[in-house]
Amino acid sequence: MPTRKIAKTKTKAKTKKAAPKKSATKAGGKTTAKKTKAAVKKNNPKGQYYYFFSVGKADGDSSMRDLLGGKGANLAEMCRAKIPVPPGFTISTDVCHLYYDNGMTVPQAVDADLEKYVKMVEKAAGKTFGDPADPLLFSVRSGSKFSMPGMMDTILNLGLNDEAVEGLARKTGNLRFALDNYRRFIAMFGNVVLGLDKDIFENVITKRKEDRRIKQDSSLQVNDLKEIVKKFKSIVKRKCGEPFPDDPYQQLRLARDAVFRSWNTPRAITYRRLNDIPSDLGTAVNIQMMVYGNMGNTSGTGVGFTRNPATGDKEFYGEYLINAQGEDVVAGVRTPQPIAQLKKEMPAAYKKLKDITTRLEKHYREIQDFEFTIQENELFMLQTRNGKRTVQAAIKIAVDMVKEKLITKVEALGRIEPAQIDQLLHPSIDPSTKYDVIAKGLPASPGAASGKVYFTAEDVVKQGPKKASILVREETNPDDIEGMNVAVGILTARGGMTSHAAVVARGMGKCCVSGADAARVNVKKKQFQVGKLVIKEGEVITLNGSTGEIIIGTVSTVEPELSGEFSEFMSWADEVKVLKVRTNADTPADAVKAIKFGAEGIGLCRTEHMFFAEDRIPIVQEMILADSIEEREMALAKLLSFQKKDFKAIFNAMEGFPVTIRTLDPPLHEFLPHKSDVEAKIEALDKKSDEYEEDLAHLSKVLRRIEELAETNPMLGHRGCRLGILYPEITEMQVKAIIMAACDLIKDKKKIFPEIMIPLVGHVNEFKHQKEVVERIARGVIGKSKSRQMEFMIGTMIEIPRAALTADEIAAEAEFFSFGTNDLTQMTMGFSRDDAGKFLGHYVESGILPHDPFVSIDQDGVGQLIKIGKEKGRAARRDLKIGICGEHGGDPASIAFCHEIGLDYVSCSPFRVPIARLAAAQAALRDKKTARKKK
Amino acid sequence: MPTRKIAKTKTKAKTKKAAPKKSATKAGGKTTAKKTKAAVKKNNPKGQYYYFFSVGKADGDSSMRDLLGGKGANLAEMCRAKIPVPPGFTISTDVCHLYYDNGMTVPQAVDADLEKYVKMVEKAAGKTFGDPADPLLFSVRSGSKFSMPGMMDTILNLGLNDEAVEGLARKTGNLRFALDNYRRFIAMFGNVVLGLDKDIFENVITKRKEDRRIKQDSSLQVNDLKEIVKKFKSIVKRKCGEPFPDDPYQQLRLARDAVFRSWNTPRAITYRRLNDIPSDLGTAVNIQMMVYGNMGNTSGTGVGFTRNPATGDKEFYGEYLINAQGEDVVAGVRTPQPIAQLKKEMPAAYKKLKDITTRLEKHYREIQDFEFTIQENELFMLQTRNGKRTVQAAIKIAVDMVKEKLITKVEALGRIEPAQIDQLLHPSIDPSTKYDVIAKGLPASPGAASGKVYFTAEDVVKQGPKKASILVREETNPDDIEGMNVAVGILTARGGMTSHAAVVARGMGKCCVSGADAARVNVKKKQFQVGKLVIKEGEVITLNGSTGEIIIGTVSTVEPELSGEFSEFMSWADEVKVLKVRTNADTPADAVKAIKFGAEGIGLCRTEHMFFAEDRIPIVQEMILADSIEEREMALAKLLSFQKKDFKAIFNAMEGFPVTIRTLDPPLHEFLPHKSDVEAKIEALDKKSDEYEEDLAHLSKVLRRIEELAETNPMLGHRGCRLGILYPEITEMQVKAIIMAACDLIKDKKKIFPEIMIPLVGHVNEFKHQKEVVERIARGVIGKSKSRQMEFMIGTMIEIPRAALTADEIAAEAEFFSFGTNDLTQMTMGFSRDDAGKFLGHYVESGILPHDPFVSIDQDGVGQLIKIGKEKGRAARRDLKIGICGEHGGDPASIAFCHEIGLDYVSCSPFRVPIARLAAAQAALRDKKTARKKK
Repeated sequence: MPTRKIAKTKTKAKTKKAAPKKSATKAGGKTTAKKTKAAVKKNNPKGQYYYFFSVGKADGDSSMRDLLGGKGANLAEMCRAKIPVPPGFTISTDVCHLYYDNGMTVPQAVDADLEKYVKMVEKAAGKTFGDPADPLLFSVRSGSKFSMPGMMDTILNLGLNDEAVEGLARKTGNLRFALDNYRRFIAMFGNVVLGLDKDIFENVITKRKEDRRIKQDSSLQVNDLKEIVKKFKSIVKRKCGEPFPDDPYQQLRLARDAVFRSWNTPRAITYRRLNDIPSDLGTAVNIQMMVYGNMGNTSGTGVGFTRNPATGDKEFYGEYLINAQGEDVVAGVRTPQPIAQLKKEMPAAYKKLKDITTRLEKHYREIQDFEFTIQENELFMLQTRNGKRTVQAAIKIAVDMVKEKLITKVEALGRIEPAQIDQLLHPSIDPSTKYDVIAKGLPASPGAASGKVYFTAEDVVKQGPKKASILVREETNPDDIEGMNVAVGILTARGGMTSHAAVVARGMGKCCVSGADAARVNVKKKQFQVGKLVIKEGEVITLNGSTGEIIIGTVSTVEPELSGEFSEFMSWADEVKVLKVRTNADTPADAVKAIKFGAEGIGLCRTEHMFFAEDRIPIVQEMILADSIEEREMALAKLLSFQKKDFKAIFNAMEGFPVTIRTLDPPLHEFLPHKSDVEAKIEALDKKSDEYEEDLAHLSKVLRRIEELAETNPMLGHRGCRLGILYPEITEMQVKAIIMAACDLIKDKKKIFPEIMIPLVGHVNEFKHQKEVVERIARGVIGKSKSRQMEFMIGTMIEIPRAALTADEIAAEAEFFSFGTNDLTQMTMGFSRDDAGKFLGHYVESGILPHDPFVSIDQDGVGQLIKIGKEKGRAARRDLKIGICGEHGGDPASIAFCHEIGLDYVSCSPFRVPIARLAAAQAALRDKKTARKKK
Repeated sequence: MPTRKIAKTKTKAKTKKAAPKKSATKAGGKTTAKKTKAAVKKNNPKGQYYYFFSVGKADGDSSMRDLLGGKGANLAEMCRAKIPVPPGFTISTDVCHLYYDNGMTVPQAVDADLEKYVKMVEKAAGKTFGDPADPLLFSVRSGSKFSMPGMMDTILNLGLNDEAVEGLARKTGNLRFALDNYRRFIAMFGNVVLGLDKDIFENVITKRKEDRRIKQDSSLQVNDLKEIVKKFKSIVKRKCGEPFPDDPYQQLRLARDAVFRSWNTPRAITYRRLNDIPSDLGTAVNIQMMVYGNMGNTSGTGVGFTRNPATGDKEFYGEYLINAQGEDVVAGVRTPQPIAQLKKEMPAAYKKLKDITTRLEKHYREIQDFEFTIQENELFMLQTRNGKRTVQAAIKIAVDMVKEKLITKVEALGRIEPAQIDQLLHPSIDPSTKYDVIAKGLPASPGAASGKVYFTAEDVVKQGPKKASILVREETNPDDIEGMNVAVGILTARGGMTSHAAVVARGMGKCCVSGADAARVNVKKKQFQVGKLVIKEGEVITLNGSTGEIIIGTVSTVEPELSGEFSEFMSWADEVKVLKVRTNADTPADAVKAIKFGAEGIGLCRTEHMFFAEDRIPIVQEMILADSIEEREMALAKLLSFQKKDFKAIFNAMEGFPVTIRTLDPPLHEFLPHKSDVEAKIEALDKKSDEYEEDLAHLSKVLRRIEELAETNPMLGHRGCRLGILYPEITEMQVKAIIMAACDLIKDKKKIFPEIMIPLVGHVNEFKHQKEVVERIARGVIGKSKSRQMEFMIGTMIEIPRAALTADEIAAEAEFFSFGTNDLTQMTMGFSRDDAGKFLGHYVESGILPHDPFVSIDQDGVGQLIKIGKEKGRAARRDLKIGICGEHGGDPASIAFCHEIGLDYVSCSPFRVPIARLAAAQAALRDKKTARKKK
């Protein structure tokens, strides 16, 4: 049985390549489609596994994406709308589940119906599958619920064999065309189904071209192609131990199974992980009559969008190639023509295309990304789907469509992934800067990025996400996904606006310049060349993804300008959201920026960040080195005026909004120099003359203090309120600064709402102790200043598990809670964020954890503590104000969680404020929907 | 108003002395008696604040310890039993609460009744208070619910003034006696009530003695005493700004208030903290007619016990001094006579004393500790209370009393503090060892200890509890409490078996040698001298507290022999306890010892402890340095035979009991040498010739690995099951060793119950991963060995908060839980045990935490997680076996908690097994009582 043998060959090869770590294989229980036979049957009692479609008639419709995949559902829907689609049928995802649950074989009862559906297509096409005289040929494509462009496998021209190729030649009168299809089919089938390396086939062609001293594939003649086909078939026989399958039905079954298997290739798994696509959906298989865009100059193929996917502008947008097969456009092998050109070359086809796609957009009420083929002047639609677009475009389209009354505001809000907004907020190149452009490509994905160039995805991954790397490739392919994810920008020498690099980069919100022909990329030498200029690995370039410019070195950038549509869109979000969105800001500049982004106050102001400034750190060190309270208080007195000034500026920027200020949190050793540095200085001075004795004495004291303050686990050490309890004078100084600053401004009739937050409370007595200090000092300052209308709150971080567990006791004393989810996650899960890198990556990859808990709240574990804390807290104090600060405050899933459990606000970095506003709005809308459903 | 002024003076002086840290004062909200006026009135609606007692008649009785204090309640009870007690009355603890709640003044309405009760005493005594001719004089003593020997203040001879002293002289015909009492009274009053330093008065006497060239106080003549009294009075006037109060009632009121204040002296606070006595009890004041043991040779005073408080033997036991006041005996100033001597000196008084104390013991059904005074041949009982005794004695007395049918077994079990059992289990000096005794004192508290000598409590405290220090003092006093607590043993040159040092040391279970007259202690020179031999600070001596021997240097010791009474007593505990008690043991020797102490299995066997042995650590390092799985597996294969051998021996020792083995837990860097050591070696080799190149390469590799493995917070880093998940081959090896060892023994018909425990699980998927490894390997080994009857369990530690929160998910997979309360406490409270020392001491001292959570479970916080874990765990798996391991498993309060919430077992170190057995029994008994009460 050739299938089994072949299947084995392939699985082995792919697994070995992408799972080099032994343990990864072991833990990989998450990667198969999971539904069991029983589950499939339960949901599909009639046992329909095949869905036929042809113009005007279809078993499926667009609602059936779960079963038919996005592509299959849209093909069915287009047929129902009488749009010209080549006939075919879809094998449902249920069959994929059955395939996996049945030992990687389609159960015989299901398999038996295959021929019945082939016959239906034959009827619609007027041709017969395997007819040597006029063969019906198929494309076999995967299609899952969510689009995974380029991730899974496709086979074209299926049904060809030595006899059929002659029939095709006769029927089309074009032997070269038939042979070209045949050699492509064998290579594609050999690679995708039989697991053979692409290069084996490519080498045959290269050799032939060298022998014949020609450069282009198109120069290959009939004899060449015949020879190549012969070679291809003998390669298959040698490598697989059996001849290339001639029987069209055997071809079809093998191809179908290969598509099912392609669901679990490592690159598909990676793509799903990066895009949060569940692993248990499975894929459908679309089997559809072949049409040809490569039958001469009255044929062509193309892809397009109903609006501009980069800007959102309402313009017909796309690219095509005359006399080409579909794969040629997306693969970026030839640089295609803009679609406007088609109007001139084939006006009728153009008009029909424009009409159809306009109808499709109205039908789906969303920008459409379509594929078409023109076969001898006849237009066929091969695919339509909601178009991937930049977030700028998405917002403009959503706002425009609300104005066109195509969609409601609520629908508009649901259309933007909150995380994508991030892309809008990052800097672009400063237009006032002068710089030399060394080359220009296509503006494939907007934004600007500077970084060191690397020439393989692997090298970029090696640098890690903290280094700014730019991936430079001839053209990218799905194997580059990981590298693209790590890189800050992508540059390709070939491929258009819809090339792999462009589509993926836009999805990721990375800046990308594609099709920069002038750049000659040499992976082996690790360099690229523009004219005589050579840029080697590690040199810095800047990409301007909005213009396609490539620049040497780093270029200064400016803040993004937010469009009118953006503001309008965000105002809709604010209308529906319930959560307040505050920001984490430690400086007046941050506060100003956050207000611009829509922050409603500061949720976390880390006072220690003010301690690190160059003019203050020596005073802070003086305080730490103090031998007595008196000395310490002297140093603190000097810090007071700095702190007061900072707070005043921050309060001013946030006027009218609450400002939560956390008292000193980090362990004191963080303010002292590194031990080794001090030791080196001492060693150096030791060798010099006596006049340095005083310096030496000081350094020795510093060293001694560093040693005293050293901790085994600083995360769980002497920090947070534990500092303020042992050194109340520190808290006293900070409270004095806060209240003095507030009083000064209140005198000027400003509205100031300070909230003083005690960090790292684990026991109510800690809070009580610090509260006493705060109240005593505040009373004193307010008394002196006579600004009696001054109001402030005293609350605490809930970041120690014990605090959440005893939140009732703490809430009896505290006026607000702010969940410090960073530390709460560290302690609840027992992960040190600084160290967890050693295993956390492996944990997420192998499915032990569903995601990185420092990015998105671990709702099952840490989330329980947050719920407990909130419930106990509110039970003790009904009007307790509760928020979260920390990384999670800007993570949409975590924000949704905060909304669901009824917190008052989230606080995040200024740049994430708009994301949080939208995420909060979406959570509120979901809530309403749920409420409505419950009614 | 002299009272107010005086009160102020005193409070200030005392506070300053004992609370040098600024913050300690601030956080000390826990140190006052807490009951409010309202609370007092609620419980005492009739408003009775004074309780009269006289032979045959008393307002109170022994059940009223809360109100009258132990001393007052017992005085009342003795009077009811017609025992000769000088008449008097007790001011209840309610008045103490009112005093604190009323701005440090007794409310006038309560104060007004004082004279009424004084009159009642006058009637019983036949004398009048303040009568210049024949004055009634009072002793004024504190007395709280729990005995705090020497902690609070006493004033004798109150009522004397210039007139009364003459009346007393006339009445007794002894002017010297009267004057001696007067000067003692002024000094005592001056010190206790007026807050003046004792030394001011002592210096006057010393100077007088020098002037008169005499050495003994007893050599002072009438004129000397007159002069001294005059000086004393002028000192009071000068220091306080007003004359010594002449009015007896003013004296009485001031003394009463001073007693109330003495409840909150730092030394009293410290004592309560060390002895877990609540701070809000308050003290009563006992005002009682003075009787005199110092009226010549027909008078005397003494203390004693109804049984031997060191051994428990049934023998009359005590000490007395002829012609002395009570304080002289306890203070250890003169070394007293054994009580047997009294039989010869005063046979009638002796017989009466023996009869009375025998009656008292029967009455109280407990060993009595009594004080008596013989005034001119007439016996007065001044106090009786349950006697403090060694735990050996306590057990023997309890077992004897059960046999004497005085008490039940249940009562007997309730009489031993579980923690005290510890004292029985520690080694004593090996009797076969020869050693030189340099001096001998009294065997004041049994046990043996070697340590470096220090001469002040402060110096001992400075060494910390981890260093073995011996406190050497002329005599100890309550200010030495902290030092005694830290020291491993105490040596005093003066004082008897009931001296401060002896009583306190026995209470603490510390070895103590008292009254070693031969030793001359010189605190200034920091040395003591025996003959010509000088022992300086820091030199090592050994004390044998069971014999009173003092030995130079360290002496070898032997395990304690447990008495027959002990075994009998413990068997009663086993009859009632519900919790199983297991042990934490890593070696066969530990296992054997634990079985002897009554362990019912191993709850925690830390396999890594086996890794540290000298012959294994190089192999472990080989494993850590391995560059590939293959290399790592080679090293592991070598470890396998070691581990198998260890497990076999442990299983053997624990035959018939379950043995829980934890897979590798600590971070790998713990097995590598210190970075600085490796660097030093490299530097050394670098200078040598080339032949060391291989060594250098190896060392560099070690260094690199150390750097790779370095962690910021190793506690939250790559350890526990995180190791086994990244390196499954380690778990595989360990499981192989465990199952192979078990199979070998099962073949020999042994009953072996291995329980394999996965550490540091936070997410059920971690457990699943390791469970798969365990099951796979175990299946393989069992299959090969053919011992099919082999049974084992797979469970996990619950030591990460998240694990407790998701215990239902984990219990669906795990067969048992063991709460690792050490780590659970660290993470739940955010305390690193290695670092918390910097603030935890302060936290406990200042009352922010009620106790050290690493010693006794934080029931409010960590305890909640344990309850959640237990409830969710049992909900998912009804028969889930649950225990705890870690330090808390041997802490009585924590054991009681484990019993209450229904765990199956506790596991603790071998030496704490008997403690745990008794604590478990007591918890079960309390449970029954509660159950009975509920009925």
